[in-house]
Amino acid sequence: MTWEKYLDKNQSRFIEELIDFVRIPSISALDQHFDDVVKAGNWVVERIKKAGVSNVSLMQTETHPVVYGDWLNAGKHKPTIMIYGHFDVQPADPYELWDNPPFDPKIKDGKIVGRGASDDKGNMLAPILAIEAILKTSGSLPVNLKLFYEGQEEIGSPTIHPFISKNARMLCSDMIFSSDGGQWGEDQPSLTMGLKGLVGCQLTVTGAKRDLHSGMHGGGIANPIHALSHVIASMKGLDGKIKIENFYDDVVDLTFEDGEAIARVPFDEKKYCIDVGAPESFGEIGYSTQERLWARPTLELNGIWGGYQGKGSKTVLPSKAHAKITCRLVANQEPKKIYDLIKSHVEANTPPGVTIDIEPLPGSAHPLLVPNNHNSSAIARKVLTELYGKEPYQIRVGGSIPVMSILAQELGVHPTIFAFGLEDEQIHAPNEFFRLSSFKKGQLAYCKLFEEFEKI
Amino acid sequence: MTWEKYLDKNQSRFIEELIDFVRIPSISALDQHFDDVVKAGNWVVERIKKAGVSNVSLMQTETHPVVYGDWLNAGKHKPTIMIYGHFDVQPADPYELWDNPPFDPKIKDGKIVGRGASDDKGNMLAPILAIEAILKTSGSLPVNLKLFYEGQEEIGSPTIHPFISKNARMLCSDMIFSSDGGQWGEDQPSLTMGLKGLVGCQLTVTGAKRDLHSGMHGGGIANPIHALSHVIASMKGLDGKIKIENFYDDVVDLTFEDGEAIARVPFDEKKYCIDVGAPESFGEIGYSTQERLWARPTLELNGIWGGYQGKGSKTVLPSKAHAKITCRLVANQEPKKIYDLIKSHVEANTPPGVTIDIEPLPGSAHPLLVPNNHNSSAIARKVLTELYGKEPYQIRVGGSIPVMSILAQELGVHPTIFAFGLEDEQIHAPNEFFRLSSFKKGQLAYCKLFEEFEKI
Repeated sequence: MTWEKYLDKNQSRFIEELIDFVRIPSISALDQHFDDVVKAGNWVVERIKKAGVSNVSLMQTETHPVVYGDWLNAGKHKPTIMIYGHFDVQPADPYELWDNPPFDPKIKDGKIVGRGASDDKGNMLAPILAIEAILKTSGSLPVNLKLFYEGQEEIGSPTIHPFISKNARMLCSDMIFSSDGGQWGEDQPSLTMGLKGLVGCQLTVTGAKRDLHSGMHGGGIANPIHALSHVIASMKGLDGKIKIENFYDDVVDLTFEDGEAIARVPFDEKKYCIDVGAPESFGEIGYSTQERLWARPTLELNGIWGGYQGKGSKTVLPSKAHAKITCRLVANQEPKKIYDLIKSHVEANTPPGVTIDIEPLPGSAHPLLVPNNHNSSAIARKVLTELYGKEPYQIRVGGSIPVMSILAQELGVHPTIFAFGLEDEQIHAPNEFFRLSSFKKGQLAYCKLFEEFEKI
Repeated sequence: MTWEKYLDKNQSRFIEELIDFVRIPSISALDQHFDDVVKAGNWVVERIKKAGVSNVSLMQTETHPVVYGDWLNAGKHKPTIMIYGHFDVQPADPYELWDNPPFDPKIKDGKIVGRGASDDKGNMLAPILAIEAILKTSGSLPVNLKLFYEGQEEIGSPTIHPFISKNARMLCSDMIFSSDGGQWGEDQPSLTMGLKGLVGCQLTVTGAKRDLHSGMHGGGIANPIHALSHVIASMKGLDGKIKIENFYDDVVDLTFEDGEAIARVPFDEKKYCIDVGAPESFGEIGYSTQERLWARPTLELNGIWGGYQGKGSKTVLPSKAHAKITCRLVANQEPKKIYDLIKSHVEANTPPGVTIDIEPLPGSAHPLLVPNNHNSSAIARKVLTELYGKEPYQIRVGGSIPVMSILAQELGVHPTIFAFGLEDEQIHAPNEFFRLSSFKKGQLAYCKLFEEFEKI
């Protein structure tokens, strides 16, 4: 039997299994669901065994467990590939906005609706089913395989870095494919060539040690909100340029070819502004909106607070004002170095009459820029072109996926995101769904990917 | 019997009466205490009658009642003076920080401890007792008298303006003395020559119509916190100067004499900074701290908020950011005109990619500047000099008392603050108290004030 036939024959069972998998409320953000994360990990272990990979186990990290498995019988002349994914999911509230309970998934109009259906249970199950199809029909894989699934991606993978460092030899691979992510559209594939890094800080500005009457003390003592506003304004100009000294020093500039690749991807700026409801786009002068979103570093205020926030008026001169700031970084910016630059900038620009404390926010990430003609991306490009009958767009992502950068950093391998979620699938929101056609496409794609390794 | 003897003889009864008065929890800010405000008003009506002024009644406003009474038998050749005060009090929470329940006042170490003891029940009762002493010992007053007490001062007198406008003929006086306020020190009198005005606005900055992912949309869409910071920074420089166009146009500059009068009042800048716990003073370049606090307009941020304020990091690009701003004004700035200047400034300085809504905050007030050699202040100066054996300092107050400005505006008479609270008396805070010695001093002072009118 061909793997195509195997997939067809077993598709309804695979869908039942995905329903089972989505039933487990493996919410990593909530302590009360820790056991469900473990349960989902064990489900994955069993499912991998069933696929025919017997060397697989649940392993401990400092927090949520991971699943590691391998099949290394293709021989030394064959490369070793890692397939990555995650079995934890986002919280599901508000529950009342779901059409069916988030952990009681339903099939409707060719979609499975439930928390984690697309992100990442449907996507991560697909390669396991592809492995089963190939192993059950041909008895062996044409490549050495390492499977690595985590249970903490949705909380920013806080303890994955030490696990990967400690187990680098075990995880070491020639190529990495991540089954967490998506494609451009139902009929249009894409290849992710860059992810932004992340670093953040919290500023606390203090004037007087207690809240004061703004009439009795206004004009005498500095206002921390006013001081904070000056500091924030000094960080980024009205031309969108970040004014922190040496901030752009390590940025890899867009080449002419990079610009062309980005410009090839359709982007309707007017529609974009209407979609998000903004009066116009805004950002760093000298770059297109798509270039800024994908390939230029940013400095964003995520929150600000201080003084009175209630109804009406309270004439207080507040003691403190606070701001949360995160920067998205591009290659080759280093989170630690950027944090130090921000700190120096704040110190050099502290207004008179106040003190400013700065502390790092949790969850930094290195940027990721996949080199052109990168090996695993070239293979993915070939498979996607065959599968969709179209060349994939070369895109970048403004968001950060810490584990991708950590794998690149620790194993020296740029991951290729090879997954089939679509943008409308409500991930992280109520009524998350995954198209059964995408579920099948994922299985086909990974089977074709394995076929490519037969040729190597 | 002389009024001095009358006061001595009846002092313990007066203290008992003050205790009775403070027992009434006449908190104007809390709806559930509205009846207590009415009760306190009726208590004042009865107490004025008892003092010998029979034409007195509780009158309605759109909200809290006022007490009006008069004694106009001094003859047409004698001036008419108004004495003002208020019988409502601040809320008393947190109750657990009080040594005795705030509305069960206790006498301790020559002080009465309870909410409203100093602000303003002890202070406002003193002139009523002085009137009693003079009427009971001499049968008549040497001046025509109008008594005007309100029940909404602690909430900014929101409905006093229409009441005063409508009853301007009834309230019309030659001089106004306010029994709400204080003196410089136990041994040092002062005369308040200026109060600041007030006007405020709330800004709402909107970028996208909903919160966005700061990775997916950062660099594409304007950040409202960043935009708001630029607007705030544009309003006041790091030199403390307000940069709103034409803001200072109507300000009456300090004369050389004004500067001298202010410099005569002891002010220890180092101690001031230590007291409020600020690293240094800060304000408009070119003026001393005391000048800025008393005689220069200010622009203060009372509150700011937007985006995520919780623990850790949330990489949101917020839809909205908000700020509350109030300006303290000095003569001859007009609240409405300053509001319009702020509005124009915001419109002219709205950063790209956002819209800004501005709306007025409730509770504006005109500034008050008492002319030098003002009639009622001259009389007060004479009485205070005799009573303390020292010339009073000429001070100003950075705060605003809306009713003082309204009286000046509607009746054309600058009020003289003639009251005896001291700065350490914890007004608006737990364990508010009033010195019994100050209570007596208030009675003596008002008796002496009446004596001055015998000479006119």
